[in-house]
Amino acid sequence: MMIDKLIDKIKKTQAPIVVGLDPMLSYIPDYIKDSAYKEYGETLEGAAEAVWEYNKGIIDAIYELIPAVKPQIAMYEQFGIPGLFAFKRTVDYCKKKGLVVIGDIKRGDIGSTSTAYANGHIGRVEVGRNSYAPFDEDFITVNPYLGSDGIAPFIDVCKKENKGIFILVKTSNPSSGEFQDRLIEGRPLYEHVAEKVNDWGSRLMGDSYSHVGAVVGATYPEMGRELRKLMPKTYILVPGYGAQGGCGKDLAGFFNEDGLGAIVNSSRGIIAAYKQEAYSKYGDAGYADASRAAVLAMKEDLKQAL
Amino acid sequence: MMIDKLIDKIKKTQAPIVVGLDPMLSYIPDYIKDSAYKEYGETLEGAAEAVWEYNKGIIDAIYELIPAVKPQIAMYEQFGIPGLFAFKRTVDYCKKKGLVVIGDIKRGDIGSTSTAYANGHIGRVEVGRNSYAPFDEDFITVNPYLGSDGIAPFIDVCKKENKGIFILVKTSNPSSGEFQDRLIEGRPLYEHVAEKVNDWGSRLMGDSYSHVGAVVGATYPEMGRELRKLMPKTYILVPGYGAQGGCGKDLAGFFNEDGLGAIVNSSRGIIAAYKQEAYSKYGDAGYADASRAAVLAMKEDLKQAL
Repeated sequence: MMIDKLIDKIKKTQAPIVVGLDPMLSYIPDYIKDSAYKEYGETLEGAAEAVWEYNKGIIDAIYELIPAVKPQIAMYEQFGIPGLFAFKRTVDYCKKKGLVVIGDIKRGDIGSTSTAYANGHIGRVEVGRNSYAPFDEDFITVNPYLGSDGIAPFIDVCKKENKGIFILVKTSNPSSGEFQDRLIEGRPLYEHVAEKVNDWGSRLMGDSYSHVGAVVGATYPEMGRELRKLMPKTYILVPGYGAQGGCGKDLAGFFNEDGLGAIVNSSRGIIAAYKQEAYSKYGDAGYADASRAAVLAMKEDLKQAL
Repeated sequence: MMIDKLIDKIKKTQAPIVVGLDPMLSYIPDYIKDSAYKEYGETLEGAAEAVWEYNKGIIDAIYELIPAVKPQIAMYEQFGIPGLFAFKRTVDYCKKKGLVVIGDIKRGDIGSTSTAYANGHIGRVEVGRNSYAPFDEDFITVNPYLGSDGIAPFIDVCKKENKGIFILVKTSNPSSGEFQDRLIEGRPLYEHVAEKVNDWGSRLMGDSYSHVGAVVGATYPEMGRELRKLMPKTYILVPGYGAQGGCGKDLAGFFNEDGLGAIVNSSRGIIAAYKQEAYSKYGDAGYADASRAAVLAMKEDLKQAL
């Protein structure tokens, strides 16, 4: 079962860490872009090729250290069809390397439409007598604004295909409180969403945690602590570490006493580490090694904190 | 400016109607699927070709009668990269036919990620010395759960590229009230979102309406009436007519006294009309003519009601 596979890999790597593969062209060393543009021109295809080569270098350097990656589909979708092809290549390659892949897609719609998203990303579609798994991520992120009937199709597909989801509860961005923190019967909206996540998750349990997880930003550690208690069986995906401002000492409250229950995402802090002063010695050509060093430093930071 | 172009086309066609191009394989006549599968096999490419051919028939039959179409990207994304290519072909073809294209993508994320979605769908991306408009819809739908800093990048790109957005306020599905109707300081969440839509929209006005619109389901006519008053300068995209249960007499309250202010979507009721008893005389081969007849009937229904 998928959540158990993720937990097993977290234990084996001793790393409750997911690396966000959210490439921007500005992160990518010139020599990679030049080579891609030479072959495909300064086109969407060229950009997508540069993104893929850049990702591949990072994945090769870090795949043994971590349990999971989280490609943010927007960073690929911005380059249209060629970009989405690079997303698909990245997902496939990470799975081949044994990584659990969390597609950060934040989809969510009315029932029949959510079914289409679920089938396309974590399930299968039928075409005549054949069936295909188009994007085939292991987990995806989902937006709860439409309520239960928009979520149910994702859960149905998880059940059928042995996959998982993480539902947005409290997001890491500065204005997340605008709606999410508003009080309803004395409790913030995000707690009401958390309660539903508990309900939905109870229908799809793994060995000790549910296949239905939650997203709670590292940038709100006190809310994380409360939400941890409210959703004891829910795995929490924690974005916002590093570049967005969260650090190790803020994170203890996201974990349960079993040392499990949360997986912390870092994107820019890992994949563009070579651009930081601390890793500048690696230079452009050593960008992947810089990412490896940044993963090791993050592991150490979390170990100290937990 | 984009909202003015949409209003102009609504006036010219005398049709506050948008047709949802949300194809399911089960809607598509066998002769179209057989022909596509013969060429591409029972593959994702075959499914995408069938979707495209089906769409093209409908667009050719109805483009003169309506101002706009709303392709639901999930129905394409479910077929992976080939499906998204059919989405792109559909968007391009509709624009060539003079239709305003509302990409129903319901994206929304933290700021930097929303920027990527906005660039990819209604804006441009830079690759070296070139710039591209990857999907190039005219409007897109956006999810508000992350608050202002997740919405701002969409508005910035609208301003720069002369495009528009529709923000989810009260969705058409049965469980939309689970979070959206909860009371915050005595008013439902959707009214608080509506208030923000007003704020955001005031920064980006067209001649008489804002480029920032709202989505409010036809299935909640009383809330539509209230929201119409709360957002006087906001165009309302109204899904849920027809197959989801909304009908013409429910819709008057979504419009302003100028006869403008709302555009009503029908998807299955138009594109799969030939499967209804009322249009069965058209048969499979006449599916596009059945769609044309269904558009004319919807125009008449709305005319009676308004």
